[in-house]
Amino acid sequence: MGNEQALKVAIVGSTGYGGVELVRLLLNHPHVDIASVISASSAGTPMTAGFPHLHEIVTDTLDGVDPELIKSKAEVVFTATPSGVSAKLVPQLLEAGLKVIDLSGDFRLKDGAEYTKWYKHEAPSAELLEEAVYGLCEWSDRAERVKGRRLISNPGCYTTAALLGLAPAVQAGWIDPATLIIDAKSGVSGAGRGVSLNVHYAEMNENFKAYKVNKHQHIPEIEQLLGEAAGAPVTVTFTTHLTPMTRGIMCTMYGTLTGNYTEQDFIRLYQESYAGRRFVRIRPQGELPATKEVFGSNYCDIGFAVDARTKRVTVISVLDNVVKGAAGQAIQNLNLMMGWEESSGLQLAPVYP
Amino acid sequence: MGNEQALKVAIVGSTGYGGVELVRLLLNHPHVDIASVISASSAGTPMTAGFPHLHEIVTDTLDGVDPELIKSKAEVVFTATPSGVSAKLVPQLLEAGLKVIDLSGDFRLKDGAEYTKWYKHEAPSAELLEEAVYGLCEWSDRAERVKGRRLISNPGCYTTAALLGLAPAVQAGWIDPATLIIDAKSGVSGAGRGVSLNVHYAEMNENFKAYKVNKHQHIPEIEQLLGEAAGAPVTVTFTTHLTPMTRGIMCTMYGTLTGNYTEQDFIRLYQESYAGRRFVRIRPQGELPATKEVFGSNYCDIGFAVDARTKRVTVISVLDNVVKGAAGQAIQNLNLMMGWEESSGLQLAPVYP
Amino acid sequence: MGNEQALKVAIVGSTGYGGVELVRLLLNHPHVDIASVISASSAGTPMTAGFPHLHEIVTDTLDGVDPELIKSKAEVVFTATPSGVSAKLVPQLLEAGLKVIDLSGDFRLKDGAEYTKWYKHEAPSAELLEEAVYGLCEWSDRAERVKGRRLISNPGCYTTAALLGLAPAVQAGWIDPATLIIDAKSGVSGAGRGVSLNVHYAEMNENFKAYKVNKHQHIPEIEQLLGEAAGAPVTVTFTTHLTPMTRGIMCTMYGTLTGNYTEQDFIRLYQESYAGRRFVRIRPQGELPATKEVFGSNYCDIGFAVDARTKRVTVISVLDNVVKGAAGQAIQNLNLMMGWEESSGLQLAPVYP
Amino acid sequence: MGNEQALKVAIVGSTGYGGVELVRLLLNHPHVDIASVISASSAGTPMTAGFPHLHEIVTDTLDGVDPELIKSKAEVVFTATPSGVSAKLVPQLLEAGLKVIDLSGDFRLKDGAEYTKWYKHEAPSAELLEEAVYGLCEWSDRAERVKGRRLISNPGCYTTAALLGLAPAVQAGWIDPATLIIDAKSGVSGAGRGVSLNVHYAEMNENFKAYKVNKHQHIPEIEQLLGEAAGAPVTVTFTTHLTPMTRGIMCTMYGTLTGNYTEQDFIRLYQESYAGRRFVRIRPQGELPATKEVFGSNYCDIGFAVDARTKRVTVISVLDNVVKGAAGQAIQNLNLMMGWEESSGLQLAPVYP
Repeated sequence: MGNEQALKVAIVGSTGYGGVELVRLLLNHPHVDIASVISASSAGTPMTAGFPHLHEIVTDTLDGVDPELIKSKAEVVFTATPSGVSAKLVPQLLEAGLKVIDLSGDFRLKDGAEYTKWYKHEAPSAELLEEAVYGLCEWSDRAERVKGRRLISNPGCYTTAALLGLAPAVQAGWIDPATLIIDAKSGVSGAGRGVSLNVHYAEMNENFKAYKVNKHQHIPEIEQLLGEAAGAPVTVTFTTHLTPMTRGIMCTMYGTLTGNYTEQDFIRLYQESYAGRRFVRIRPQGELPATKEVFGSNYCDIGFAVDARTKRVTVISVLDNVVKGAAGQAIQNLNLMMGWEESSGLQLAPVYP
Repeated sequence: MGNEQALKVAIVGSTGYGGVELVRLLLNHPHVDIASVISASSAGTPMTAGFPHLHEIVTDTLDGVDPELIKSKAEVVFTATPSGVSAKLVPQLLEAGLKVIDLSGDFRLKDGAEYTKWYKHEAPSAELLEEAVYGLCEWSDRAERVKGRRLISNPGCYTTAALLGLAPAVQAGWIDPATLIIDAKSGVSGAGRGVSLNVHYAEMNENFKAYKVNKHQHIPEIEQLLGEAAGAPVTVTFTTHLTPMTRGIMCTMYGTLTGNYTEQDFIRLYQESYAGRRFVRIRPQGELPATKEVFGSNYCDIGFAVDARTKRVTVISVLDNVVKGAAGQAIQNLNLMMGWEESSGLQLAPVYP
Repeated sequence: MGNEQALKVAIVGSTGYGGVELVRLLLNHPHVDIASVISASSAGTPMTAGFPHLHEIVTDTLDGVDPELIKSKAEVVFTATPSGVSAKLVPQLLEAGLKVIDLSGDFRLKDGAEYTKWYKHEAPSAELLEEAVYGLCEWSDRAERVKGRRLISNPGCYTTAALLGLAPAVQAGWIDPATLIIDAKSGVSGAGRGVSLNVHYAEMNENFKAYKVNKHQHIPEIEQLLGEAAGAPVTVTFTTHLTPMTRGIMCTMYGTLTGNYTEQDFIRLYQESYAGRRFVRIRPQGELPATKEVFGSNYCDIGFAVDARTKRVTVISVLDNVVKGAAGQAIQNLNLMMGWEESSGLQLAPVYP
Repeated sequence: MGNEQALKVAIVGSTGYGGVELVRLLLNHPHVDIASVISASSAGTPMTAGFPHLHEIVTDTLDGVDPELIKSKAEVVFTATPSGVSAKLVPQLLEAGLKVIDLSGDFRLKDGAEYTKWYKHEAPSAELLEEAVYGLCEWSDRAERVKGRRLISNPGCYTTAALLGLAPAVQAGWIDPATLIIDAKSGVSGAGRGVSLNVHYAEMNENFKAYKVNKHQHIPEIEQLLGEAAGAPVTVTFTTHLTPMTRGIMCTMYGTLTGNYTEQDFIRLYQESYAGRRFVRIRPQGELPATKEVFGSNYCDIGFAVDARTKRVTVISVLDNVVKGAAGQAIQNLNLMMGWEESSGLQLAPVYP
């Protein structure tokens, strides 16, 4: 908001939690200027009307969703919309010559039929689904594939935690993929800013709930990439829970070992898989990460417990769902897309306590 | 729900927090049978649809708001409605020959114009306002006045904490009534079960907010009774805050002393004022009550700190807003109205931790 | 504390969370009088010194741990001590002619060597381990076996949630016992009242942590009873987590189905297994229990999700760790031991919200 | 930790909450290198042993408290010690030629006798008390006075919130200083990292407590500066409470108006007083700040409510006790001391939600 030589970006969905976190992090980014904050529902009102924490920091009025207007102000657009909205909007943005990093989920699945089955919306075109690069940027050659592209699909919050925690072991063949169980816990911001009895403070405080058991729309996304890693289709059991806190996801993941792999073996394997990737931190033996240890930051921390009694490994991964699970990873993808240092604007230590 | 010799009661507004707490407490009452749970918005659905914690405990379907139906089932009605609703409904219930304990606030102020000013609704008739007994049942001769009556107005949650904490000192003339400041903090259930961004878990968690400063509708109720105690009009400064917890109110109250009263003096004065009233507990010198120490119970605990430097007393009172601040005190009023032991159904120790 | 015809009971460990919850619940029990509250560390001080919420409710001074003194005051003793303490104390209490309900864990495992391996203490005598009845009182013929006995071992909090949730399906052979994974989450009161950085508010708030993965001492207890149910040894994977709330346990449990069992099948099987047992509530299809729905009560609620894709069932059980997971179940065992109605003193609806 | 041209700083008390927050913020500072993290109790162990959230971010081992060692590594020292420790240590650090920013409270009061009365420790020398600049850096000419100095005393957390909220009105004579009442609420991190029952999660969760009423050691600090602003001694009533959240302070402050000042008048007065000081944000009329709106940031937000009925103003100020109330303000003082831009390293928007 004032840096004239910086890249101009626009944020569609600035009044959701993903959007407002993009604002927080991009304000700290050395190469980016937030040229437009956009909201379909609140266009014409100041951003601070709904977010007084930005008083005197963001003085902009929210723009409406207008591709031509966006084009006149920005070069890159983050689309942090509800699912189904991006599917229609993104083609127009691309048409207008903009680059897009999509946080909505609409471009994550390569198979449009699969998308419609889980999301209950019409899928984007097969061409765009094919073109979109799935930006799980620490995995495999994703960081390379993101570079210079015009459409990146940012992974889901649960998905990021699950995939970063499982992909190396599945690819290495150390876990029997038929045995994968993912028990996921999320802070309440993961349910979005919409009001409902489900997120009423008095109902959710001092409460722990399971929801969408085996029905969460992140399941096909997890299976798509694990299938690639395994070289064969993978089916997972996936449970999601809400835990009485605002931010943070933990995935506790179980799989049967295919050999006598130790915790030290896992640590070495993962350290190699994520060598040079500062935002994935492999914890030393005997240390398991807790969600608060990544609060407000872009880290995903991973730890392991191997049980000789049951021949299973328990992999625990944690991240901040609003940062690494959404806005932070989207900025990381922007950095890679632009050829910048991967951590630009993201070098913030976790907020503790 | 089955006790044939018990008093039949109906609860209008069973799907609000006050109503569902009446259900919890009345299930434990030796002389009462819940004959009808009533909800304008959810009539025809099972109570458990919105409150699965009552699975197999309350099997009733919610009735609609129909005075004739209520009359056919019950003798006493608790009206736990939004303000403005009881004003219209209660005359019909009385007309039908029912007794009413009203939790809505519509019958608390003796002056109808004052009611309309603070509540923005049309006031009930002057006759009914006059007839309604204000059920602050530990204060003065209130317990006597409640006995045998057909219309009792149950005090507000903040009001109960404020008045029980201030009335004895004001009546004794120990505090200059012109100096009264009430700094009140409430758990989020006090804001009711309606959904809004204000009570969204992610917005309210790890947050502390002031609201309705000098504008809360409990102000005239507090001033009305303190005026009676002082024998002259009293005006208070009253601030309300939401604190990130579900239940509990603390009032921290300040007043300038009119003499050299000590903490021991206050303790003695209050012990005499509340002699024999088990639900008001005066704490020993040096001990201040915390909200968790009354959680889930009908107690109001009071402590004192006298500051020789400033010649002020700080009175701290705590209660559970859903129990002593609403449903519990309403049942206490029922007990007194019926001539039963005041604590029937309410002899539950606080839930700790 | 004053009911002269009631059964006199003593509570060893009254200053722990299990002990103080026994006090809360027994105060509400029609047939019991708390004759002695006992604490090794705080003997000689009033119970209210550490628990001001009991002001004017419990006026007793804490007794020391003295079997002769206990014998002079009480007939039945609850031992809510740290593990290792009961192993030494209980023989003395039995010797003195007292009946004992032990909450410590010292008498839960039939195999003393197994006890020493997991608890790192010397085991009680083989005779006493054999004599102790494991009081999972809704399971199988346990309620019968408890009747008239002098030594009952109260199950652990996690164990109760896990076993009530798994035992019927394991006994029926519907789940392959080799595939059992238990992902358990507990409120912080489960860690006890001792102070440590781990339970410091500022460290635990807005945090979710795993601990003792595959090493929790409730594992052998779970495997012992599931082995009985299966008719063959069972080994489970068991993960424990702390969630930022005070009370409540959820076990999310996974197993591979041995046939095409549906959710309705599971509901029927469990309804039959727990027919007539009011404290186990089987939820209707599509409804999964949350921890707040049993807060402060003696209920254990169970729900099911069958996944046709993976041929696994997810069983979810919840309870209040301090009530059904400790004090409440202990009182239920007392009731059964004495031949009283199972629910005496425990007929409290959950506190909601 | 690697920036060779940067200013080398050392942090004594790195394992307290103030110290670890200095680490978080200084890692983001463009001109500073953390040359030594120091802890009396944990010297010789890696910083990450107690703070795994810093895994791979801070690889240093904690140094002991040794002025010569510090001198060999650093130029400026932050002393975030318990009170009483800095009083003895700081003279040695100054002697060694180091500059000191002290967060302990030992150098805040100009009157050593007053210090001893409230802190129960021996006071530093009168010379050092005189020399220490009280770094409330938005107030009056403080920013100027800090420049180039070798000893700065960083204000307390409650004090900062109270003074920034009251000083302009007191100095302008708009509030009768004899009527000042400060009702303060703090998150639990304000109580420090030491373990005690008071900060046990299960005791503090869902709880709201008053403590140290009229006895808090920040009282003389508040009165000292308000006395300067008023030009005459001021005595305040000051109540401190713990609220169930980790970070954040709200001061709700009351004073009787000396004239017919409106909310708009207050807003103008404060905007003028804090013109150009970006970290103090005056809220528009009708908007009161909440603690979450400054979470994790260096802002202090202030709002006003004037009550015509009682002729009192209610001033509400909020800040993050660990940032603006401790580490952030200390860095702001460093920036001013060094002649840098006041906001260096502190330009972080609040973390929301």
